[in-house]
Amino acid sequence: MNRFEVRPACAADVPTIHALIAELALYEKEPEAFVLSQEDLLKHGFGQTPPLFEVCLADGGAEGLLGMAMVYTKYSSWRGPCLFLEDLVVREPYRRLGVGKALLTEVLIMAANRGMDRVEWMVLDWNEPAHAFYRAMGAELLREWWPYRVSGSALAAYRRGPTFDTQTD
Amino acid sequence: MNRFEVRPACAADVPTIHALIAELALYEKEPEAFVLSQEDLLKHGFGQTPPLFEVCLADGGAEGLLGMAMVYTKYSSWRGPCLFLEDLVVREPYRRLGVGKALLTEVLIMAANRGMDRVEWMVLDWNEPAHAFYRAMGAELLREWWPYRVSGSALAAYRRGPTFDTQTD
Repeated sequence: MNRFEVRPACAADVPTIHALIAELALYEKEPEAFVLSQEDLLKHGFGQTPPLFEVCLADGGAEGLLGMAMVYTKYSSWRGPCLFLEDLVVREPYRRLGVGKALLTEVLIMAANRGMDRVEWMVLDWNEPAHAFYRAMGAELLREWWPYRVSGSALAAYRRGPTFDTQTD
Repeated sequence: MNRFEVRPACAADVPTIHALIAELALYEKEPEAFVLSQEDLLKHGFGQTPPLFEVCLADGGAEGLLGMAMVYTKYSSWRGPCLFLEDLVVREPYRRLGVGKALLTEVLIMAANRGMDRVEWMVLDWNEPAHAFYRAMGAELLREWWPYRVSGSALAAYRRGPTFDTQTD
């Protein structure tokens, strides 16, 4: 690899974005948890205003796309709008060459330039290379916050019909 | 307290929402971390489309507003749009009366009715009553995910001027 540039993704990049998410899901040992189609990503990220997410790509030119950072705007009730880094992926052959650092740096610049106060993300406990990388980048581990979730059939059980009275006329 | 109803917040509720966030920041031992003004909340939640957050209120009628749930739409690269529960607050005199349960239930119904697959939130490690409540509501603790953050001056250091060449003509 000679050089790469970091640039915003466009709709034509969706097939590669889809492949990179699949690569990360496999690395995180949950390939079956990734259920979105390319059409879903196209609609959510490039077919509505504002999009539900934004992607920065590391573009290696003739070598193709080397990695990506996917972010969305979260909201802190104490600090206002912030960025959440949903995924940072670098394709296996291009790791430890500065691609991840360039992508994370771009995300931090985006947030700082928008006047945001925080960028946050989550890392799997066993992913030691990721922890070492983020510590080296100056990120703070928030060990006192524990994440909770309701999902799948447990959440679907809360689906309700309309609660207003049926109108007939 | 006799009864309360859960309803969506409107712009006129911003002063109470501001007070409830301040009460939670005090309970979480970080009162100085809450820097948003009522004007910020008005703009972010009620002055733009789509808003950066939504709020459900527990309205006690003559007793005033008893509590609130603040949520925003997050994005899972595996599952698509989800809800994140930023704050669940019940005013101190009205705790353990079912207000929190009614608010969280409303949030779960909102997400399920929107076809979302997940609702997520974060809890401070020492907040045992909250952990017991969320476990009783069927939420899953995601102990394997560790949160990271870059914030404040560490993030502001990434602010850049425009990176394109200055145009003169």
